[in-house]
Amino acid sequence: MTPVVAIVGLGLIGGSLARDLTAAGCTVLGYDVDPGTRRAAHEAGVIAGLLGMELEDIEAADILVLATPPLEALSLLDAAAPRLGGLCLVTDVGSVKQSIVAAAERLGLGGNFVGAHPLAGDHRAGWSAARSGLFHGARVFLTPNATSSSAALAAARSLWDRVGARTEELDAAAHDRLVAWTSHLPQALSSTLAIALAGEHLGPGELGPGGRDMTRLAASSPGLWTEIALANAEALGPALHAVEVRLRHLRAALEAGDQGAVRAHFEAGQQWTSASLATASPGGTGGFPPRP
Amino acid sequence: MTPVVAIVGLGLIGGSLARDLTAAGCTVLGYDVDPGTRRAAHEAGVIAGLLGMELEDIEAADILVLATPPLEALSLLDAAAPRLGGLCLVTDVGSVKQSIVAAAERLGLGGNFVGAHPLAGDHRAGWSAARSGLFHGARVFLTPNATSSSAALAAARSLWDRVGARTEELDAAAHDRLVAWTSHLPQALSSTLAIALAGEHLGPGELGPGGRDMTRLAASSPGLWTEIALANAEALGPALHAVEVRLRHLRAALEAGDQGAVRAHFEAGQQWTSASLATASPGGTGGFPPRP
Repeated sequence: MTPVVAIVGLGLIGGSLARDLTAAGCTVLGYDVDPGTRRAAHEAGVIAGLLGMELEDIEAADILVLATPPLEALSLLDAAAPRLGGLCLVTDVGSVKQSIVAAAERLGLGGNFVGAHPLAGDHRAGWSAARSGLFHGARVFLTPNATSSSAALAAARSLWDRVGARTEELDAAAHDRLVAWTSHLPQALSSTLAIALAGEHLGPGELGPGGRDMTRLAASSPGLWTEIALANAEALGPALHAVEVRLRHLRAALEAGDQGAVRAHFEAGQQWTSASLATASPGGTGGFPPRP
Repeated sequence: MTPVVAIVGLGLIGGSLARDLTAAGCTVLGYDVDPGTRRAAHEAGVIAGLLGMELEDIEAADILVLATPPLEALSLLDAAAPRLGGLCLVTDVGSVKQSIVAAAERLGLGGNFVGAHPLAGDHRAGWSAARSGLFHGARVFLTPNATSSSAALAAARSLWDRVGARTEELDAAAHDRLVAWTSHLPQALSSTLAIALAGEHLGPGELGPGGRDMTRLAASSPGLWTEIALANAEALGPALHAVEVRLRHLRAALEAGDQGAVRAHFEAGQQWTSASLATASPGGTGGFPPRP
């Protein structure tokens, strides 16, 4: 039985999910704050119908996916909570999970809420960037809370299965620590490199292929990343600090002309690229060593 | 008239150059420290003949291209200098230019030496990574010194024209300051991110598409980058420091929950990606503001 899926936010993630779910035979209802996006998605046949902006007609759906920026998802959950109890699954796609999981529990939605975070997409944003196949082979973290029902969790797994993604369960706190290093830190470094280059009046046209790779993420939505970085500040702070410390060590080695230390730096970086390190395991702590 | 070009070092840069020059009708003589590479290049018809390892037979060539790692290029120049006076052009492909330009002048090769630095290639290395078309549309910096002859400079321009590259002249010191920011800094950041992830036991498999972009360069040759970073330490140090300072500011803004400052960071990074900033101009100082 294919579910009726309501998706709020038809940007890169929500729009791509709507495309693939419709193609997979689901009935998709959609809403986007932008009237042009709503119209385009409807005309393209990517959504079968429109939702009201306060989800007045959400009873028609089995599943609700919040695919807006994180703060909007939180306030939408807050406003619509009384109408969401009858759904089989309420989920989201945000990059930070503790805040929304906690909000769902506080609002009494713990049973049918399962947070999700697809590792897909890039620096582009909006409906125009949405495309078929975005999630094919992509990793999707599911962060059930203590009270999530097994039916809700099964519905979340099945939803992402339909679009070819690989789901993996992880505790919300472990998820947030993990992505602080693997996603939020790379984004922060790319933006920081761009700012440093701007400070020297050096534009994108000055870069070779490697420098272009390193600054691609800097084009990501500032509004979205401000929300993500602030929501995950506790985990991102130490990650930023670790990079600062290692840059300082490299700089000191260069100043001292310490060939061994400089070489050790580049060698450690290269070794990592071919390393087969621990991967996040279901319910585990990501690749992290146990915390005291 | 097509020149006879001798290339020492048939790795990614030298091997790709040999491929395209041979395809363009030049006679290419080659040497590589690795016997397997010498044989493969010869059997592939990429080089017409082999050079001796001390360039004993270099008189057969019009142009010598040193395409080895920087320290090897310096010692080769040193050892072969007495035999290089009759060539039309002696050039190199290294990422740092002041050291080799100064060595050429000291060795009395100023007249026919023109340093070169193609902004091409990637983290891969060696003959197996060499390929046709690598320089097509690529930017190549030429750093003539005060005594470079106009014939040598014309030969350098013509050499890179033949493989489809765009040459641009720049003072060696300005070149080195420029690439410290646009090339050496991105490399150092990529390696540093990889090391920071290794420190948390997080492997490459944990990354999404953005994180993979950010760590691709970390796979580059540690030996080569140790030489480059040390040779350009004076310019790279301040670039590393600028990133440290900006990371510290971002971290402080996150700790303080200062939404405006966090947003300003990501916005400045995004604005840079669409900025049209000053570009390096012939004989100029790159995009740098005048120095006091």
